[in-house]
Amino acid sequence: ANHSAAEAASERNGMLTKPPGALGRLEDLAIWYASWRGTPRPRVERPQVIVFAGNHGVTAQGVSAFPAEVTVQMVANFEAGGAAINQLSRLAGAEMSVHALDLDSPTQDFTQGPAMDGGACVAALATGWGAVDPSADLLVVGEMGIGNTTSAAAIAAALLGGTGADWAGRGTGVDDAGLRRKAEVIDAGLAKNPWRAPMDVLCSFGGREIAAMAGAIARARAEGIPVILDGFICSAAALVLHKCDPAALDHCVAGHLSEEGAHGAMLDAMEKSPLLSLGLRLGEGSGAAVAIHILKAAVACHSGMATFAEAGVSDG
Amino acid sequence: ANHSAAEAASERNGMLTKPPGALGRLEDLAIWYASWRGTPRPRVERPQVIVFAGNHGVTAQGVSAFPAEVTVQMVANFEAGGAAINQLSRLAGAEMSVHALDLDSPTQDFTQGPAMDGGACVAALATGWGAVDPSADLLVVGEMGIGNTTSAAAIAAALLGGTGADWAGRGTGVDDAGLRRKAEVIDAGLAKNPWRAPMDVLCSFGGREIAAMAGAIARARAEGIPVILDGFICSAAALVLHKCDPAALDHCVAGHLSEEGAHGAMLDAMEKSPLLSLGLRLGEGSGAAVAIHILKAAVACHSGMATFAEAGVSDG
Repeated sequence: ANHSAAEAASERNGMLTKPPGALGRLEDLAIWYASWRGTPRPRVERPQVIVFAGNHGVTAQGVSAFPAEVTVQMVANFEAGGAAINQLSRLAGAEMSVHALDLDSPTQDFTQGPAMDGGACVAALATGWGAVDPSADLLVVGEMGIGNTTSAAAIAAALLGGTGADWAGRGTGVDDAGLRRKAEVIDAGLAKNPWRAPMDVLCSFGGREIAAMAGAIARARAEGIPVILDGFICSAAALVLHKCDPAALDHCVAGHLSEEGAHGAMLDAMEKSPLLSLGLRLGEGSGAAVAIHILKAAVACHSGMATFAEAGVSDG
Repeated sequence: ANHSAAEAASERNGMLTKPPGALGRLEDLAIWYASWRGTPRPRVERPQVIVFAGNHGVTAQGVSAFPAEVTVQMVANFEAGGAAINQLSRLAGAEMSVHALDLDSPTQDFTQGPAMDGGACVAALATGWGAVDPSADLLVVGEMGIGNTTSAAAIAAALLGGTGADWAGRGTGVDDAGLRRKAEVIDAGLAKNPWRAPMDVLCSFGGREIAAMAGAIARARAEGIPVILDGFICSAAALVLHKCDPAALDHCVAGHLSEEGAHGAMLDAMEKSPLLSLGLRLGEGSGAAVAIHILKAAVACHSGMATFAEAGVSDG
């Protein structure tokens, strides 16, 4: 973040034709965005949405309401333009791309051992790193992967403590028995994979798409590209980075609070307050893509409004 | 609202490539919008934003942090394109217009008697009614009027009960003494204007811009145009209609929860749950204009997504 850009943006904010603070969180957002873009009067012109897809060996344990082949079917739907994230990316003026990570080779079932070895994890991180367009000025990363709320919950449990029951949610819509099953599967995975260093946790529970999201979020920081985090899965990816370095997510804002029950606790752990709370639990980057408009609104006001002096308005 | 369009939209929603309910509130919004537009697969193509401005005699009581001449100065700022609502309307692809209502003739100071006589109130309602473009497919009404949080709080107190202290807030930013003063002024107005029928309350406390907003909201219903309500002042206008007929706001959704403290109680009374909560307290229609994007996102998903059958995706 650029301190002088933040100061200049903050000064500009105080001169705009509105009562001080009247745009609430939009004011903070604009100043934060200005600091990461290194200019006091930024624009949002090239948002990028990347959807990563991966398959999960843990689906063998019956943790999802949908069969594993839906992952590849949905990738085809993304490529054909028929998914929610396609509509939301277009509406937000974002360039959207899809990266399917070795869908024919699911990760290992983490109840039997680590989901990924170090090589597979690094490859997925690198895919994410390489997927970011350095000329983008805003990034959303989303995902598709049947079984991945189970992976994300296991990551949260391993990094933040608690049991499967604390972190498991209904995902795409499991019933009460399915929810209990998910919690048991996570507990079994936690016992089988006792390592708790962030990168070890990522290897242990996967999946490839979660590692790719972490790689992309890290790359965005290196490029000075602000990130809007999506829901439960994306936050698990971000949490791995946060546990490596609490400042690693300073370039990120939480796009929304997911309906997946434990998402709020994950955001709390990262000290992120969500921009939206609309009961979404779809993934794909959908909540974050909706939140692009909130950031655009903040920046449009900040950079486009007249100052009191320009408009000849008495400033109270 | 059109029942068969709502049913057809609901059926379509169930076939889209997502787990049932995974788009949360966006699903309900799209179905609601479809019902008011009378088509199962609607589009949002012509949003309209109207800003009404009025002056308030009660400013003589020292209820605002800004001088009354700011109303006319801000109207000039709206016309020159320099205000927040200009940037937000442009971003949302909305046609924006400004109607200044007799700014040279402020309403009467309501601590001395009714702010408006019946003729003035009807004229303002008619201005609002006439300002709506019948070809619009979504409406936001906003306002500018130094002193109008005091009018809005008095309207709420008169229609919902309670005292000035229950409904007064900081508006553009009064200090603690100013807040106490506002509460006292409202109490004095409530005592001086004992009528509690909704239209009498509107005459009693004004202002012209609040009456105009009520007129526009009513016209939108007659034209089948859904409305996104803005914050504290807009909600006071809507509340007058709600007290005339609880169904009068079925075509309205609450765009946001204002930082003005008593706004939540007003929304509760109208049984409206806000789409956004970003700490805004600017008025002008700003919060509702940001919420246009939420509605557009809902409708884009609903009308643009592929069905399970179209995409060849297994539906669980």
